[in-house]
Amino acid sequence: MKYCFGVDIGGTTVKMGLFSTEGELLDKWEIPTRTENGGEAILPDVAASIRKKIEDRDMSVSEIVGAGVGIPAPVDAAGVVQSTANLGWGYKEVKNELQDLLGGIKVEAGNDANVAAMGEMWLGAGKGEKNVVMVTLGTGVGGGIVIDGHMLVGENGAGGEIGHMFVNPDEEETCGCGLRGCLEQYASATGITRLAERRLAKNDDQTILRGQSLNAKVVFDAVKAGDEVAVQIAEEFGKYLGEAMATLAVIVNPAVIVIGGGVSKAGEVLLPYIERPFRERAFFADRDTRFVLAVLGNDAGICGAARLILG
Amino acid sequence: MKYCFGVDIGGTTVKMGLFSTEGELLDKWEIPTRTENGGEAILPDVAASIRKKIEDRDMSVSEIVGAGVGIPAPVDAAGVVQSTANLGWGYKEVKNELQDLLGGIKVEAGNDANVAAMGEMWLGAGKGEKNVVMVTLGTGVGGGIVIDGHMLVGENGAGGEIGHMFVNPDEEETCGCGLRGCLEQYASATGITRLAERRLAKNDDQTILRGQSLNAKVVFDAVKAGDEVAVQIAEEFGKYLGEAMATLAVIVNPAVIVIGGGVSKAGEVLLPYIERPFRERAFFADRDTRFVLAVLGNDAGICGAARLILG
Repeated sequence: MKYCFGVDIGGTTVKMGLFSTEGELLDKWEIPTRTENGGEAILPDVAASIRKKIEDRDMSVSEIVGAGVGIPAPVDAAGVVQSTANLGWGYKEVKNELQDLLGGIKVEAGNDANVAAMGEMWLGAGKGEKNVVMVTLGTGVGGGIVIDGHMLVGENGAGGEIGHMFVNPDEEETCGCGLRGCLEQYASATGITRLAERRLAKNDDQTILRGQSLNAKVVFDAVKAGDEVAVQIAEEFGKYLGEAMATLAVIVNPAVIVIGGGVSKAGEVLLPYIERPFRERAFFADRDTRFVLAVLGNDAGICGAARLILG
Repeated sequence: MKYCFGVDIGGTTVKMGLFSTEGELLDKWEIPTRTENGGEAILPDVAASIRKKIEDRDMSVSEIVGAGVGIPAPVDAAGVVQSTANLGWGYKEVKNELQDLLGGIKVEAGNDANVAAMGEMWLGAGKGEKNVVMVTLGTGVGGGIVIDGHMLVGENGAGGEIGHMFVNPDEEETCGCGLRGCLEQYASATGITRLAERRLAKNDDQTILRGQSLNAKVVFDAVKAGDEVAVQIAEEFGKYLGEAMATLAVIVNPAVIVIGGGVSKAGEVLLPYIERPFRERAFFADRDTRFVLAVLGNDAGICGAARLILG
């Protein structure tokens, strides 16, 4: 049997997994991310942990196909990072450095959102497909695009930044990126809260949302309870997201769009709100595109990272 | 020396080229496209023409790396077409059929707009780049996307249909595709004519455009002559196209966007009208994306088709 490692480097912990090349998750563990001193210990820690696992399991290096790494920053096609918000790294040749630390075991590196999309394609909601978009609805809106089985990396690693698609020319508030009218301003957890606050301030319509501390979960719980105002908020959220997905589909023509991230925990109730405006706006060739919920949760990163190594 | 053929099948003629694998165009010719009887003669004609060229130039089949074909229809990753508007074909396994007709010479097939983007990347305005978008502003708006040197084909060959990006929720007229507010309604030759007609109908502002038969050339000639109303029309055109390219860039993060098609014959005057709204709306990682005019003209198809065969 051949093996590969998947490494998902986050701001506080590094998630690690050992997989068979057939896609079986054999072992899973975590180590802390030591971001001090420019994050200089992170890759040596990862290498040491991989070496120890190889030793503990009495594996031979010839059985290891390689190790893939997901990183919370843009990563170019050569596995190079220019800077990171949470790891302490500036310019870093992740692929080359880790490869050296592992004594020549092959390494590939990618952006964490793109890597998560690879994970859902390999072992999750997009299993069996080769053209997969993953949208992660969390504090922000992240995106990963897989085309013909390969990550869409782009010129400087910034491919798939779906959250900053331009969806509303009339927006007056500024997005975290400095622009106005980005998808993230409506479809993220914070975006949904904002839509809810705006809707409640508009008039005195009765709703169980009033008086509650507003967030995405509260809104979708109210949708499930049949609250009309909450349904209107869900419709506005879904219109922005669904229409943006129609434009995304016109460009990349995916088989499936996977919805993940914290907001997706609302469950199946979410999908019709996205699908309806999507179908209304979709180019005829994209009308069969399916919407599904992510299934791998926090394991998407290690799965996708491991998959990177399989080409 | 090794050779490859590039074949660009159009509704009236098939353009053909013989290239060295280093990218030198050695010979170029055309044959008529015989669309009668479901287009049954088209691929046999192409194969006969290639065989004759091999014979005439006294080449050996072992020197031929293969033949690439561009087709005016969606073509999936297996080289299969479902239907065509202009060739008479319904379902057709282009890659397999032509491969058989050529006695095993390797064949690849792609959509003509995607293939043209490959051509501009290989030998034209995107030379030296691996992440290239080509926008063809003709009767409609066509698009081709090259990611890491490979065509973005998509699930059913409909990747890169840039003309049907959703750019205006307020549009009341219907696009040829049946939707409303597609980029093609503003950025194609017919779209520019429409914008001009609307602008002139708005009020009595003085302009040299009045009384002329309006089209994209007339509008951009007036822009060059300093006509203020024409400049406003160019700004509206550029705002739709530039903002759409900002959203496209957020998704595919290209190094360069190549502007081609009939409208691009207006020349360099066109670019600032697209670039200005692009830069205002571009995500920070995409601000270095360059805009350039296509340079290969009608040869983009044969160049890109030949390039398909080089992987």
